[in-house]
Amino acid sequence: MSSLKDFAVKGDKKIKLKQFATAPDDSISKEKIIRKTQENLEKMERFQDRLYSEGKEGLVLIFQAMDAAGKDSTIKNVMRGLNPQGIDVYSFKQPSGEEAAHSFLWRAIKCFPTRGKMAIFNRSYYEDVLVVKVHKLYETAKMPNRCKQGNVIERRYTDIKNFEEYEYNNGYRIIKFFLNVSKDEQKKRFLERIDLKIKNWKFSSSDLKERAHWDEYMKAYEAAINATATKHSPWYVLPADKKWYTRYLVSEAVLDVFKKIAPQYPELEEDAQQRLQADRECLIAEDNSR
Amino acid sequence: MSSLKDFAVKGDKKIKLKQFATAPDDSISKEKIIRKTQENLEKMERFQDRLYSEGKEGLVLIFQAMDAAGKDSTIKNVMRGLNPQGIDVYSFKQPSGEEAAHSFLWRAIKCFPTRGKMAIFNRSYYEDVLVVKVHKLYETAKMPNRCKQGNVIERRYTDIKNFEEYEYNNGYRIIKFFLNVSKDEQKKRFLERIDLKIKNWKFSSSDLKERAHWDEYMKAYEAAINATATKHSPWYVLPADKKWYTRYLVSEAVLDVFKKIAPQYPELEEDAQQRLQADRECLIAEDNSR
Repeated sequence: MSSLKDFAVKGDKKIKLKQFATAPDDSISKEKIIRKTQENLEKMERFQDRLYSEGKEGLVLIFQAMDAAGKDSTIKNVMRGLNPQGIDVYSFKQPSGEEAAHSFLWRAIKCFPTRGKMAIFNRSYYEDVLVVKVHKLYETAKMPNRCKQGNVIERRYTDIKNFEEYEYNNGYRIIKFFLNVSKDEQKKRFLERIDLKIKNWKFSSSDLKERAHWDEYMKAYEAAINATATKHSPWYVLPADKKWYTRYLVSEAVLDVFKKIAPQYPELEEDAQQRLQADRECLIAEDNSR
Repeated sequence: MSSLKDFAVKGDKKIKLKQFATAPDDSISKEKIIRKTQENLEKMERFQDRLYSEGKEGLVLIFQAMDAAGKDSTIKNVMRGLNPQGIDVYSFKQPSGEEAAHSFLWRAIKCFPTRGKMAIFNRSYYEDVLVVKVHKLYETAKMPNRCKQGNVIERRYTDIKNFEEYEYNNGYRIIKFFLNVSKDEQKKRFLERIDLKIKNWKFSSSDLKERAHWDEYMKAYEAAINATATKHSPWYVLPADKKWYTRYLVSEAVLDVFKKIAPQYPELEEDAQQRLQADRECLIAEDNSR
């Protein structure tokens, strides 16, 4: 059975997306995987409680994918056991006027959690080297000419890499998931969205237009992943044709980073311990007759 | 007469703070300087109008200095001719709980203006390599151990330099002022704040405690300026013992960066011009008798 590390990209060597499976191989038992995922979710809950109590490290999970790859349902199914007080989800759609009038990292940085909390980014600043690259959107942006000349996208890779290193240096971990769905499976899911009334709201004609750029998107993802994967901010290229398998691998990756953080409940110093005992005696001695 | 470029630090060679004057030399006529400042302020106003109308480039002016060096009064006197719709001033005091629970650039990035606007930072993320360095405040911050090991301040210089380059690549200019007041002049101004009732609110005992660290602060400023001055994000080390002279040099520096931006009123394309003429005729032909 393949394990999480087969899907991890850490910048030590360049990858080709074509070499990554979009589905689990037949030897993998769905039933077993679902049971293990459930166990993982329970472990995640306990880790999150410690992360929050300690308040030293923040965790940002970024989900990127083609349409219908399962970002929303993965987020729903892997994160719903967690305490919502310690986790926020942000969806980055087409930038608003105010967002577009700022540097491309701005709207995501604003959403960074306080240390001790988690944030899920459903799409992210990576859109600025994906859809923006495929459609050369920077050419029509309201920016001085110097920002449109030379290799804009390469400069953004550097900006992103520097930014993620800065966050790591300051107590954050940023983990990036590419949900790797096949073009065939996307077709199946689009057809379902068209045929099933309750799924119609999820489909838009523009989804087909983007599908027509499939190969360019794959190239853009491959280049972005190779340029920005690092030891501390890895990418995971996860098979996404079977949702039960994607969810399992995401839970494995979240557990892996939790283990690296190794959060601990804060332990009180000697004198704080003593104050606690004094407070205890106060409570016991309280005159309840009044 | 010395000119702006004598006070500019652009990273091409290391500077010593001691070589920078804290006061104008005697050959400089106060009257003439005040007249020239007034002319500059008028030019700034016209530049700002074009910057705003064009909306392509953002401008951030950072003011750093020891207490009583004149940050507030310089901001008030140099910026008050500008249209407040296009400029915001942010004071960065001791971080709030929420701010301290984020990476050190976070609270300043949130305040970045939209392109076309200006922001003044009264203190800034540079405090995180100044007061934080002098008092080693990072040691007690709630962060994982890796963030407190090795040369924390050197890493922050790199983070700041990368960040300012990223902003330049994305349509912003960041100009940094160190108002270089002498220790004697600070003493005079502190005494005034103590002796004059209407100035009492500006003084706090803790100001004296910081004054006791004067030499360490000078070292921290010198190191920070040398580590983060670049061609596109220069520092200006400005004499601050005479406020009229500081104001003049700030206005010169702002004009200098405006000239580099060279903002232009947007010009309409051919077809938009034609629509404008059609609209004109509509207005003229309007039936005012109804």
